[in-house]
Amino acid sequence: GVVRAVGEGVRNFAPGDKIILSLDAMCGSCRNCSNGRPALCETHRMEPVSRYRQNGEPIYHVRPTFVEQTLALADACVKVPDDTQLEQACLISCGVITGIGAVVNRAQVETGASMAVFGCGGVGLNVIQGGVLAAAGKIIAVDTVDYKLELAEQMGATHFVNSAKEDPVQRIIEITGGGADYAFEVVGFPAIVRQAIDSVRMTGTAVVVGVQPTGQDVSVEGWHLLEDRTLMGAFHGAARPRVDFLWILDLYKQGKIKLDELISRYRPLDEINEAFADMKAGKVARSVLVFD
Amino acid sequence: GVVRAVGEGVRNFAPGDKIILSLDAMCGSCRNCSNGRPALCETHRMEPVSRYRQNGEPIYHVRPTFVEQTLALADACVKVPDDTQLEQACLISCGVITGIGAVVNRAQVETGASMAVFGCGGVGLNVIQGGVLAAAGKIIAVDTVDYKLELAEQMGATHFVNSAKEDPVQRIIEITGGGADYAFEVVGFPAIVRQAIDSVRMTGTAVVVGVQPTGQDVSVEGWHLLEDRTLMGAFHGAARPRVDFLWILDLYKQGKIKLDELISRYRPLDEINEAFADMKAGKVARSVLVFD
Repeated sequence: GVVRAVGEGVRNFAPGDKIILSLDAMCGSCRNCSNGRPALCETHRMEPVSRYRQNGEPIYHVRPTFVEQTLALADACVKVPDDTQLEQACLISCGVITGIGAVVNRAQVETGASMAVFGCGGVGLNVIQGGVLAAAGKIIAVDTVDYKLELAEQMGATHFVNSAKEDPVQRIIEITGGGADYAFEVVGFPAIVRQAIDSVRMTGTAVVVGVQPTGQDVSVEGWHLLEDRTLMGAFHGAARPRVDFLWILDLYKQGKIKLDELISRYRPLDEINEAFADMKAGKVARSVLVFD
Repeated sequence: GVVRAVGEGVRNFAPGDKIILSLDAMCGSCRNCSNGRPALCETHRMEPVSRYRQNGEPIYHVRPTFVEQTLALADACVKVPDDTQLEQACLISCGVITGIGAVVNRAQVETGASMAVFGCGGVGLNVIQGGVLAAAGKIIAVDTVDYKLELAEQMGATHFVNSAKEDPVQRIIEITGGGADYAFEVVGFPAIVRQAIDSVRMTGTAVVVGVQPTGQDVSVEGWHLLEDRTLMGAFHGAARPRVDFLWILDLYKQGKIKLDELISRYRPLDEINEAFADMKAGKVARSVLVFD
């Protein structure tokens, strides 16, 4: 969006600035912020700030969306260049960085590695394009919906497994000759986390990107893990929003990161319910709401 | 030991050479050997070689021990300097590298990091001295036996938790102000793996060193993992025996790695049963059998 006004004490932003609202606010001084992990800023995780009240009661919110104007924490704003196209850049802060960041920030996939991606929705497609950026040697897309596998091909996946029709673990082991170097779970089910870790070779890494059901465990066979396998979580792509959003925009301008291809359609705000229905039906990668 | 004779086609070794028998034989040409992970050599894991027969049936063995003379694969022999003291060097190939390697090869603990070590037996004590080598800021020893915690102090641990008397997870969180950067499970029980991952902070790593019961799972709460936590296995310290054994000997000679302190007593071969009884009773760190 565009800054309309700034509060007292706000530095670094001025009216007219283009910004992306980061999913994660960053205090800049806690241990995680100091250590290059601002997506897990301890200050803002521990002290949710409410800026709205209704009948005297605070209303809590993470980041305001689906609105024409809002109040936002300066700590959550990332200034972007004046020529940024907001209708595409709006995707970056959640799905794009969560997917690309899981590959390049968190797992740090090396050139030539093989990787499997379980779940090819809005985030999974960005894991795939993270794999393209990292020059992964094989990018195996796994989904139960053929349309999603077609989108995966557009984003750069090299192999395709419909897990409703065949066992993805067995297929990944066949394709890679013994297991993938990396497997990303981008769905949010413990059973799929198990498939991901079961499909990586000795010394391989499974990365949990999908938000898991609260209170549920994920598991791995102890001996399987012991052979130098790794199971890691990747929160919001281990994003450093003030760094990552800018290079993502650079690479978008250079045609090396795809944003337009992620947007199945634009809709006005008053079609928000239709947009959600499309998402739930698996008919779109992403819908973008525009304000005229 | 000392090489007595070599078979046809054996290069790189000659009678009189001092060697350490590596727990893992290394073909030198499989994918894992080529990729700096020879402890997981695929050739020798897949094709166990038997060099003995009894009544025509092959007898399988991993590495010959408790014998005065034996046949060994050249791929399992690591040549060491002529001045190597074999009565101490014999510890390196299993417990020492498994512990030190888990810290410096596998987890790659950074200077100043905090780490907890669950289990202070022969391997756990070497995880502790790996932490000293890595200049970990806090090394928290956890065991149920006070004698083991005393040994841990000799090896360089800075904090001590008797987990029979207090909750180790809670204590580690208190000592570190929110959780350790690393926690090593060096026992071999899924319940202790769970304590290890529960005791690391956001962005922290739990390392499974202990051999887990065959077929049993280890688990972690999904959301806990998602906050950039990592659960990894460390097989035999991710050893590169032909590299690591030599620098371990260098650092031993310089007084920077402790081997003598790990040896509670020496015994002749015919006291092997007493040595095992001591081990099971938790009365020793390591007993070494000597041949006169």
